[in-house]
Amino acid sequence: MVDDTLLESGNQKIEWARNHMPVLSIIRDGFASEKPLKGCRIAMALHVEAKTAVLVETLASGGAEIAITGCNPLSTQDDVAAALDTRDNVSCYAKYNASRSEYYESINKVLDINPDITVDDGGDLIFTLHKTRQELLSGIKGGTEETTTGVYRLDSMSKDNALKMPVIAVNNAFTKYLFDNRYGTGQSTWDAINRTTNLLVAGKDVVVAGYGWCGRGCSMRAKGLGANVIVTEVNPVRALEARMDGYRVMTMDEAAKIGEIFITTTGNVSVLTRDHFKLMKDGVILANSGHFNVEMNLEELESMSKTVRTVRENIKEYHLGDRRIYLLADGRLVNLAAGDGHPAEVMDMSFSNQALCIRHLVDNDLDIDVHAVPPEIDTYIAELKLKALGIEIDELTTEQEKYMREWEHGT
Amino acid sequence: MVDDTLLESGNQKIEWARNHMPVLSIIRDGFASEKPLKGCRIAMALHVEAKTAVLVETLASGGAEIAITGCNPLSTQDDVAAALDTRDNVSCYAKYNASRSEYYESINKVLDINPDITVDDGGDLIFTLHKTRQELLSGIKGGTEETTTGVYRLDSMSKDNALKMPVIAVNNAFTKYLFDNRYGTGQSTWDAINRTTNLLVAGKDVVVAGYGWCGRGCSMRAKGLGANVIVTEVNPVRALEARMDGYRVMTMDEAAKIGEIFITTTGNVSVLTRDHFKLMKDGVILANSGHFNVEMNLEELESMSKTVRTVRENIKEYHLGDRRIYLLADGRLVNLAAGDGHPAEVMDMSFSNQALCIRHLVDNDLDIDVHAVPPEIDTYIAELKLKALGIEIDELTTEQEKYMREWEHGT
Amino acid sequence: MVDDTLLESGNQKIEWARNHMPVLSIIRDGFASEKPLKGCRIAMALHVEAKTAVLVETLASGGAEIAITGCNPLSTQDDVAAALDTRDNVSCYAKYNASRSEYYESINKVLDINPDITVDDGGDLIFTLHKTRQELLSGIKGGTEETTTGVYRLDSMSKDNALKMPVIAVNNAFTKYLFDNRYGTGQSTWDAINRTTNLLVAGKDVVVAGYGWCGRGCSMRAKGLGANVIVTEVNPVRALEARMDGYRVMTMDEAAKIGEIFITTTGNVSVLTRDHFKLMKDGVILANSGHFNVEMNLEELESMSKTVRTVRENIKEYHLGDRRIYLLADGRLVNLAAGDGHPAEVMDMSFSNQALCIRHLVDNDLDIDVHAVPPEIDTYIAELKLKALGIEIDELTTEQEKYMREWEHGT
Amino acid sequence: MVDDTLLESGNQKIEWARNHMPVLSIIRDGFASEKPLKGCRIAMALHVEAKTAVLVETLASGGAEIAITGCNPLSTQDDVAAALDTRDNVSCYAKYNASRSEYYESINKVLDINPDITVDDGGDLIFTLHKTRQELLSGIKGGTEETTTGVYRLDSMSKDNALKMPVIAVNNAFTKYLFDNRYGTGQSTWDAINRTTNLLVAGKDVVVAGYGWCGRGCSMRAKGLGANVIVTEVNPVRALEARMDGYRVMTMDEAAKIGEIFITTTGNVSVLTRDHFKLMKDGVILANSGHFNVEMNLEELESMSKTVRTVRENIKEYHLGDRRIYLLADGRLVNLAAGDGHPAEVMDMSFSNQALCIRHLVDNDLDIDVHAVPPEIDTYIAELKLKALGIEIDELTTEQEKYMREWEHGT
Repeated sequence: MVDDTLLESGNQKIEWARNHMPVLSIIRDGFASEKPLKGCRIAMALHVEAKTAVLVETLASGGAEIAITGCNPLSTQDDVAAALDTRDNVSCYAKYNASRSEYYESINKVLDINPDITVDDGGDLIFTLHKTRQELLSGIKGGTEETTTGVYRLDSMSKDNALKMPVIAVNNAFTKYLFDNRYGTGQSTWDAINRTTNLLVAGKDVVVAGYGWCGRGCSMRAKGLGANVIVTEVNPVRALEARMDGYRVMTMDEAAKIGEIFITTTGNVSVLTRDHFKLMKDGVILANSGHFNVEMNLEELESMSKTVRTVRENIKEYHLGDRRIYLLADGRLVNLAAGDGHPAEVMDMSFSNQALCIRHLVDNDLDIDVHAVPPEIDTYIAELKLKALGIEIDELTTEQEKYMREWEHGT
Repeated sequence: MVDDTLLESGNQKIEWARNHMPVLSIIRDGFASEKPLKGCRIAMALHVEAKTAVLVETLASGGAEIAITGCNPLSTQDDVAAALDTRDNVSCYAKYNASRSEYYESINKVLDINPDITVDDGGDLIFTLHKTRQELLSGIKGGTEETTTGVYRLDSMSKDNALKMPVIAVNNAFTKYLFDNRYGTGQSTWDAINRTTNLLVAGKDVVVAGYGWCGRGCSMRAKGLGANVIVTEVNPVRALEARMDGYRVMTMDEAAKIGEIFITTTGNVSVLTRDHFKLMKDGVILANSGHFNVEMNLEELESMSKTVRTVRENIKEYHLGDRRIYLLADGRLVNLAAGDGHPAEVMDMSFSNQALCIRHLVDNDLDIDVHAVPPEIDTYIAELKLKALGIEIDELTTEQEKYMREWEHGT
Repeated sequence: MVDDTLLESGNQKIEWARNHMPVLSIIRDGFASEKPLKGCRIAMALHVEAKTAVLVETLASGGAEIAITGCNPLSTQDDVAAALDTRDNVSCYAKYNASRSEYYESINKVLDINPDITVDDGGDLIFTLHKTRQELLSGIKGGTEETTTGVYRLDSMSKDNALKMPVIAVNNAFTKYLFDNRYGTGQSTWDAINRTTNLLVAGKDVVVAGYGWCGRGCSMRAKGLGANVIVTEVNPVRALEARMDGYRVMTMDEAAKIGEIFITTTGNVSVLTRDHFKLMKDGVILANSGHFNVEMNLEELESMSKTVRTVRENIKEYHLGDRRIYLLADGRLVNLAAGDGHPAEVMDMSFSNQALCIRHLVDNDLDIDVHAVPPEIDTYIAELKLKALGIEIDELTTEQEKYMREWEHGT
Repeated sequence: MVDDTLLESGNQKIEWARNHMPVLSIIRDGFASEKPLKGCRIAMALHVEAKTAVLVETLASGGAEIAITGCNPLSTQDDVAAALDTRDNVSCYAKYNASRSEYYESINKVLDINPDITVDDGGDLIFTLHKTRQELLSGIKGGTEETTTGVYRLDSMSKDNALKMPVIAVNNAFTKYLFDNRYGTGQSTWDAINRTTNLLVAGKDVVVAGYGWCGRGCSMRAKGLGANVIVTEVNPVRALEARMDGYRVMTMDEAAKIGEIFITTTGNVSVLTRDHFKLMKDGVILANSGHFNVEMNLEELESMSKTVRTVRENIKEYHLGDRRIYLLADGRLVNLAAGDGHPAEVMDMSFSNQALCIRHLVDNDLDIDVHAVPPEIDTYIAELKLKALGIEIDELTTEQEKYMREWEHGT
């Protein structure tokens, strides 16, 4: 039996999110009257929190039957999961702090729905499908992928000819990555760090590993909080951009000696290792905003530590004898594991892309490949979002359209 | 009997804060060996959360006996209060969500210690002392006041010849107001708003009422989060500064129509009234970072509302029929009532001023008046803080000192 | 006979630029020893100022014979042109304030070199070549194009099957447009506006038309100077980005009523027209940073004016009877016509791309089409630039490269 | 005979400035009708450029007779000086690049007017008056001082009992130093550096010596241009502020090794010395924005140099054998010596303070001392400026005024 307080809290959060996702609301209204997903079974592995619940409601209102679980052991909010599970045509298997075996058990339960469509954030669902549930592949119309890391994984699968279904890289829509990955990650990462640590950011040396869209967001907001930001990169063009954006750029070997807060956003493995932990100052804070908890080599950190203990909610102290290193949220993506994830208005665009791409998959037969979000979806969402914000913009005049086509005009 | 979980949580928070208040640590070490407050009874009304607990520990280690309660009904953290109450020579009477009568009952209990020294944040303790406990005044060596609002109140008392004891305006130390009021309020206000609402700040029209140090902090961090800031002011010089800092400046009558998030930081009453609520857009967020909950006229807001309900933790929805207004933390100072208050490193300086000013009161006989923090205390704290941050700065050379004294050099 | 003072000034400027273009210096050293352009005739139409002169020297040192003229009537610096003309194997036909017929006469003189390679900034050279000097086309190995506007023009030619030679879109290199168009245009536009007007930017409402890379640069620096920025756009995604970057976004019809300084960066025609001039406040400043002087409809402005007069160097006052509109640099690209153009260190990257792409054209037979800059050139320049800045960055470890290729790892 | 071109250029500049100084215009209108300075002789030593000319016109229109010269050998603009000298009741003795003896000769000529009022910027006039022209002191009603350095000098004179006349410290008005010293110096310093060097600021390490109001302005704008700013200070509180504003703070010994552009704003002597020049990188740029050219020890720099030559207008190269140091504008205040000084709108406020303080001196008999600007003048100017900007602000309601006076309200 479900706890009423849990349900109420979950429902409150979902209502709040719903009220702040106007584009998705318009799509839901359309879905409710047209039922474009009628009879469609959707298997989902996403961060189960309030905004995700609004996406699920939207799909359900379009006629779909949905099974959902989490895509990260620490990002599920149990109150939202409980509330979501009470919705018609929705089964929710996610739970906070799932063990590895529980995590994959839930993924398999979700796949048991025998899906037409899969929705991934990081690729664990699609990977399990290809690895151990191949019998389901023939029934699949297509899938979507929410995040950079998942898209990389799919591209690698595709290169290896291992991908057996069409997938739309929702992440790569302009109205997704330019906003979600940048403004979303930027704000929510710092929200999580600030609420978890209650420490001052102004005047601190903050190291951001990676200057992709997430790293840009984290750097920009760190600067906005008064930090002195250091960026590390492997890509020379991005390194130059970071420098000209006013940040210091150096190797992690150098940054490790200076930094007071470290945020990893690379999508890669072992960005912080024993070699860096050895150089760090007493009391540094480590937080990860990449998809997987592999960016810091936690085994190495643990092996170097005399004691490990929780010193505040979501803060683990690794005592190295002479120095202490504080790890937030076990190195899981800090904005979800120690916060509420991205702001609702940003997920409004990301999940509108999801909803419309799922419909696109249902309505069309795509080739087996990683597909871009159709540009008309991207533009449509941008236009609805502007409208929701009450912003009017210019349109090209006939004279201007003509000018853009012509090439004979000159000095 | 006290709940062990509560105690553990409280003690964890206090330890975390203590580890991030290096200047106060140095002072505590000195106090512990010199016992400058031996036999001194201190009555305190402060926000009872972790950083305050570290101040209390510091005073206790100096030999003082302490009775403490809250200075705001919603800013007490019960776990910290419980932990603090277990300390030797400390009695803590604060509780979260105290009713008005409970609030003043606790103030009176604190006064029952028959204090030598009072410590105020907002002036309720000193006011009660002058109003209903005058018999204690003769025993008082002096008091300190932590915040701008309290200092205003004391200045008014002094002007009316109502003040009957010496008080040091700790708020007015450079190492207090330039940091605590600006960087502290700026960060902690947005920490509280972000964690409470999970809404995007980027692209929002944010109205900050008041361009004092708190207002500057809130504006600066709003800009740093990507907001488009509007400032309202009554002081023309500050209004000009706000404009040249890149913000829009207008009357609240105009701003009320545009704003999406409103933050009051004026220290004054009825900054937002019925006239403004009538003009506001659907879904606006109201937050107060001023000391008292009078900046928004909540009776008027309530009287205009069809329904009032809690829609998320610390968010109350006032439904006006056609529009909804969301109030955070009942209009109490949002950074403490819906967050953990200022970052520890900022309170390190503020409370170091408190500790040293209390010692100063004990060591000296001051006139009945509102006194400035002795400049040598201010400078000493700045120097210790720089040292704690590992920052070395230049010193004037002999040549430079000479040059500054002379006036005969010219073109 | 050339004026010695002119020559000295030109040579000083060129030396200063050369000393601040370290990447191009390395390329020049290589060119000087390898002579990869031996026997190659290059026809160029670029802004003839100091940084361009350094590119010309570089090409000459590679063995090329060069004829160069301007690509805008107001961007030539006569001292630099004079100095450049004295170089071996270089003929310079550019002059400041060339009339339209003089301008195209010079273009034709440059083409008289019977070029192997053309170098364009805006496309006037290549256009003339295709329109009236087709006999030369057979001798052409290829061309390069420096700027967004020129690349658009070439893409349109290509779409119309009018393009008859291979061209490399130098503009589209990361190490070009991300830096030159953004940080370069941003700084140099404001340098020009500030030195020309001596007016305060802080607190002004600045309207930037277009949120491409130039518009971003101009907006970013306006904010950095304390302005309150309004962006106009026709693209909904860019409009959203501008909003979330903290700017106001609206139609030009609205912005025209508010703005105090207007900067056009759209690459399009008639962005400011009679309809907008009618709405503008008294005393507004108009500046263009787009390639051509068509963004403001100057005929309409002139026809509305009672008087037109020069009121300060590079400032023309259009008196509309009740209001005055001030136009900078006749609406020509303000950073070059009223300033010295982009900072040297930015052109270092842009012109290194030019030098290496010219070599690439000489070394390879490309198809008739608009080609991207080869990625290895882009990366090479970024790496050299980092080195010149003394910045070291990380390299992917073997473990990381493996991780990026694999897709089986997951939660 | 005066050159007509010179006159025209000077008059254009003055008209342009006049049109952008609305507050001073209102004061001039009042002066013209009331003639409050009738019969008053005013001796002035100010930077003779366009905004100053508008102040002089204002005083003349109030009935005064004026003699004016420069207050710095390199800040006079000869075209403005020529135009000013043609005005009724105005004699102008300033010239660009005056030798030391010419400079003081002109100061003495100005004093020959037998002044009632002196107007200083830096104190050279008042100093000369006290040192060699004491016979004039008895006729003096009072003086004004424009800048921080001059006020320091006067305070030192006053402490030494050397001051023999009342002086108003115009610099210390809120509407002066908060705007002129910060936004004015910030913008004009970078305008001068950018136009003089044509170098990129983004990504550069910029060292600002001094974090007073000028230093804040220079740091803020450097950050706004994408620089990575290092601040040096001798005051620990200011050093902490700089750090929490996001800048690095260190000793000049450390900063000297890192910086690429150095700006001195301390008002003190020998901030950069041989010890620092030895540590600097090849190619660094030195600029001074303090009043006197003493902040860099130029004799030491010269003595260390193998060669010294001008390499571009206003740039001198000191070649140390292995490294080059570039000095802008001979170390004179760069914004005036290599630019047009502060933006007109900022000087509008500063010079309105001058005009009204001069009137105040004429209307009142002040004690011999350094006086503050009367607060009502300060407020009046702020109010007029807001009006000129079209900005309306709130006024305290009766309820609010009452609340501010009372102290009995509390929690």
